[in-house]
Amino acid sequence: MKSNMSLPRLEDEDDLNVWERYVQPVFAEFTGSILYTFIACLAVSANNVFAIGIAHGFGIAVLCTAFVRISGGQFNPAVTLASLLSGGTGIVGLVYLPFQFIGALLGSAFVKASIYQYNSFEEIHGGANMMRGNRRIDPFNEYQRTSTWQINIVSIIIIEIVASTAVYLCYLLNNIDDRQPQRAPLYYGMGVAAAVISTYFTSGGGFNPAVSFAAAITSGYWNEHYVYWVGPLIGALLAALVYRLILGDRRKRLLGKVR
Amino acid sequence: MKSNMSLPRLEDEDDLNVWERYVQPVFAEFTGSILYTFIACLAVSANNVFAIGIAHGFGIAVLCTAFVRISGGQFNPAVTLASLLSGGTGIVGLVYLPFQFIGALLGSAFVKASIYQYNSFEEIHGGANMMRGNRRIDPFNEYQRTSTWQINIVSIIIIEIVASTAVYLCYLLNNIDDRQPQRAPLYYGMGVAAAVISTYFTSGGGFNPAVSFAAAITSGYWNEHYVYWVGPLIGALLAALVYRLILGDRRKRLLGKVR
Amino acid sequence: MKSNMSLPRLEDEDDLNVWERYVQPVFAEFTGSILYTFIACLAVSANNVFAIGIAHGFGIAVLCTAFVRISGGQFNPAVTLASLLSGGTGIVGLVYLPFQFIGALLGSAFVKASIYQYNSFEEIHGGANMMRGNRRIDPFNEYQRTSTWQINIVSIIIIEIVASTAVYLCYLLNNIDDRQPQRAPLYYGMGVAAAVISTYFTSGGGFNPAVSFAAAITSGYWNEHYVYWVGPLIGALLAALVYRLILGDRRKRLLGKVR
Amino acid sequence: MKSNMSLPRLEDEDDLNVWERYVQPVFAEFTGSILYTFIACLAVSANNVFAIGIAHGFGIAVLCTAFVRISGGQFNPAVTLASLLSGGTGIVGLVYLPFQFIGALLGSAFVKASIYQYNSFEEIHGGANMMRGNRRIDPFNEYQRTSTWQINIVSIIIIEIVASTAVYLCYLLNNIDDRQPQRAPLYYGMGVAAAVISTYFTSGGGFNPAVSFAAAITSGYWNEHYVYWVGPLIGALLAALVYRLILGDRRKRLLGKVR
Repeated sequence: MKSNMSLPRLEDEDDLNVWERYVQPVFAEFTGSILYTFIACLAVSANNVFAIGIAHGFGIAVLCTAFVRISGGQFNPAVTLASLLSGGTGIVGLVYLPFQFIGALLGSAFVKASIYQYNSFEEIHGGANMMRGNRRIDPFNEYQRTSTWQINIVSIIIIEIVASTAVYLCYLLNNIDDRQPQRAPLYYGMGVAAAVISTYFTSGGGFNPAVSFAAAITSGYWNEHYVYWVGPLIGALLAALVYRLILGDRRKRLLGKVR
Repeated sequence: MKSNMSLPRLEDEDDLNVWERYVQPVFAEFTGSILYTFIACLAVSANNVFAIGIAHGFGIAVLCTAFVRISGGQFNPAVTLASLLSGGTGIVGLVYLPFQFIGALLGSAFVKASIYQYNSFEEIHGGANMMRGNRRIDPFNEYQRTSTWQINIVSIIIIEIVASTAVYLCYLLNNIDDRQPQRAPLYYGMGVAAAVISTYFTSGGGFNPAVSFAAAITSGYWNEHYVYWVGPLIGALLAALVYRLILGDRRKRLLGKVR
Repeated sequence: MKSNMSLPRLEDEDDLNVWERYVQPVFAEFTGSILYTFIACLAVSANNVFAIGIAHGFGIAVLCTAFVRISGGQFNPAVTLASLLSGGTGIVGLVYLPFQFIGALLGSAFVKASIYQYNSFEEIHGGANMMRGNRRIDPFNEYQRTSTWQINIVSIIIIEIVASTAVYLCYLLNNIDDRQPQRAPLYYGMGVAAAVISTYFTSGGGFNPAVSFAAAITSGYWNEHYVYWVGPLIGALLAALVYRLILGDRRKRLLGKVR
Repeated sequence: MKSNMSLPRLEDEDDLNVWERYVQPVFAEFTGSILYTFIACLAVSANNVFAIGIAHGFGIAVLCTAFVRISGGQFNPAVTLASLLSGGTGIVGLVYLPFQFIGALLGSAFVKASIYQYNSFEEIHGGANMMRGNRRIDPFNEYQRTSTWQINIVSIIIIEIVASTAVYLCYLLNNIDDRQPQRAPLYYGMGVAAAVISTYFTSGGGFNPAVSFAAAITSGYWNEHYVYWVGPLIGALLAALVYRLILGDRRKRLLGKVR
C-alpha cells in the first residue's frame, strides 16, 4: 500500500495498521462504486447530455476527493489497472477489482429499484452506454437519438480508446505523480465530464467497465457491450505505457533515467 | 467548538473568545441558510434542471468556503446531525438547528416577497422538492413534468436515502477529516450539484430538510413532504455510521484501532 | 495598499515600489473591467440562461485569480465599496472606481463594435440587465421572456439586494479575511454564477453597477436602470455591516473583541 | 527550460536531465494537443453551445494540470508565443510549435476516422470555428445558426482579438507569474470555457490556431480561416505586451523597476 501513497497523507504511512492498509481502501472503493454508479446512471433520467456529463464528472470529483487518501478514489477497474501498471497502486489494487464490480452492481440495482416500473428503467438501458447518433427523433428526448451519422462499431471503438486514454493519463499525472504538490482529484472529474460530453452522441461515453457491465446486467441491454471493455482496457494500457516509458516521474519512468 | 475545528484555523483555536466560539458560528449558519435558501429556491425559476443543480451546488460551495472556518458551513440540519454524530461538530451544533430552520424560512419568505403575485410562487411550489417524472407535458416547462415513469413513494425514498448518504459522506470526508490537508468545501457543492441533477426528475432532489420545510410552509405544498425528512435523516445516520465504524480517521473511527 | 494585501504575496509587501503599489492595481482593475464586461455582455448572445451565468461566473473567477494579488480582482464598484468599508481594500480603492467604469464602457463598446449592425446590439440591450419573466413568447429565445409572473419593481429590488449581499459577503470572507489560508477567487466566480442563474428570469442578474451602466449607455436601454444601482449599493452596505460587526476576522471586526 | 519553471517543481530543476528538459516537454505538448483537439472537436457533436464550451474548458483544465509541470500545458501555439515573449517559456517553446500542429492534426484525424461517413464530419466542419449568427433555422440544431445579426469579418476579428487577449493574459498571470503561490491551470480552462461560450454564436470561439488549422485541413472548410490566425496572434502580442510592460512580476516586467 505504500506505493499507493506516493503523495503525503497526514497519518504517517509507515504507521498504517492493517485496517488502514487493507480494510479501509477496499471498503472505500466498494462504497464509492455504489454511490458513483447510482448518481451516474440515475443522471440519464435528466435527458440532457450536459446534465449527464456534469453529474458523471462532479460525482467522480467529489467521491475521488473524499476517498483519494484512503484508496486512491478510482471506482473504475480500468483506472485501477492503469495505476497498477504505472506503479501508482500497489498489488492491493487487484482486490479493488471485484469490489468495484459488486459496488457498481449494487448502485445500478438501487437505480432499478427506484425506477423499475413499466419500461422506464429499460427505456434508459439502466443508464448504460449506447451507440447513438446526432439526430433526435423526438426533439425533446436526447437519450433516443438516431444514428444518421452512420456511426459504426469501428468508430466507437476508436472514440472509446482515445477518450479513455485521455482520462486515464490525466488520472495518472494528477493523482499518482511525484511531481504534483498535491493530488488533484478535481481534474479527474473534469476530465470525465469533458469526455462524456464529447462522446455522448457517438459512443455514449463509457470509460468504466464496472458501470457499463452493471448497467448491462440490470437492464439486459448488451448491444455492442464488448466495446465498453475493449476501449477502456486498451486506453489503460496506452496510458500506462506512455506514463511508464515517457512522461512519468523519475521514480516510475523506465526511459530517460541517465543524466 | 474545538472539536468543530479539527483542521487548521489561522486564529489560534485555544485562543477563541466567546464571540468567536458561539456567536459567530450560530450567526454564520443563520446568514448562510437565508442566502442559500434564497438562491436555491429562486433558481427554480430558471426552469432548467441543469441551471437548478448548478445554482444549488455553486451556492453551497461559495457559502461553505466563506463560512467553513467559522461554523463548518453546513446550512443543513441533516449535515449538522451527521457531523455531530461523527465527531466533527461539537455540541454547539444543536444550537445551529433552529437557526438553520429560521434562516431557511426567511430566505424562502424573500423569494415569496419577490414573486408572490398571482400564482407564480405557488406554481413553482416555492422551489420545494416535488415528485416528478421524465415526460414533459409542456415541452418548454421542465418544472412540470409528469410521472409517466410511475415513480412511487418507495422509489423516491430510496433515491433520497442513497443520494443523501453520498452527499453527507463526502461532506464528512472532505471537511472534518484529519487526513485532509485542508477543508474542501468546493466538493460539498459539487456533490450537491451532481445529486440534484441526478435526482431532479425523480425525487426532486431534496437532501435538506430546512429548505424543504421552509418551502413547504411558504408555498403550502405538502405532498410527500415527509420523504424529504426521512431520506436525509436516514442518510445522515448511514453516513455517520460508515464514517464512525469504517472510513473515519484514526481519532474518530471506532473500529480498526489496534495495530 | 498594505491593508489591501492582508494575505500573503510572494513579493514582500513592505518592499513594494510606487509602480506595484499604485500603477499596477489601477491598471489591473481597468484591464480586468474591459475584459470581464466584454465576456459578460457578449455572452448574452448565447441566448441561454445557463451559458450566460457560467460565462459571468467563470469570467470573474479567471480574471479575479489573475489579478487578485495585484488589485484584489474586483472589477465591480460595489465590491470595491464593500471591501473598502470592511478594511480589505485601502484608500486606493477610490481610484479604482472611475477606472472600473471606463473599463466597463470600453468593454461594452467592443461588444457594440462587434455586433452593431441593424438591431442586434439593441435587441440584447447591450447585454444589460432587464426585468423579465418566466414565460417565453418565442420558445427558442430565452432573452425575450415576458413577465407573466407579474414581477414588479419592488420584487426586483428585493432580489437584487439579497443576491448582491450574498455575492459580496462571499467575496469578503473568501478574499480579504485573515482566517483564510489563501485567497479563494474561484468562489467569487461561483457565487456570481449561482446568483446570475437564480435571478436571470426575474431581476436579470445585475450586481455590478459598472457593467449595468456601461451597457445602458451603449444600448440606450434605461428601463428600471436605477434598480441596478440601488440593489448593489444596499447589498454592499449590508455585507460590509455584517462583516464589520459580526462575522469579520479579529483585526477587522468591531464587536466581540473582549475575551 | 529553467525559465519555463519559475514556480516550484518537486524534482529539483537544476537537476533535470536531457530527457526531462527536452524530450518530456515536447512529447507532453504533442500528446496533449492530440487529446485536446480530439475532445474539443468531437464535442461539437453535442450540438449545444454550453456543452461545447465546457468540453473545451474542462478539457484544457485537466490536460493543463496534468502537463503543467512538464511543459507548461499550453497545447496552443499562440499561448506558447505569448509565454515565450513574456519570459515564461524558454527557447524550447519554438520546438513545441510544430508538435502542437502535428498533434492537433492527429487529434482531428481521429475525429474524422470516427465520424467520417457520409457528410457528418463535413457537416460540423470537423468542429472548426465558423462565423455564425444568433438565429436558428432548425431550432434543434445549434450548430447551424444563421447570421441574421449580420456579423461581418471585422466583427469577428475584433471578437477574436479581445477574447484571445483575455484568455492568454489569464494564462500568463496564473501560470508563469512569480507572485502566484502555485500554478493555477484550472483557471486557464475556465477562461477558455467562458470565452468559447461568449463568442460561439458570433466568431465561433477559436483562440487556438493549431486546432483551427487542423480542423480546416481535415474538413476542407476554409471560410474566414485567416481570422483564426490573425485574432490569436494579435491577442498573444497584446497579452505579452501588457504583461511585459505593466502587469508582470518584478523579474519579467520592463517598466516600474525603480523604487
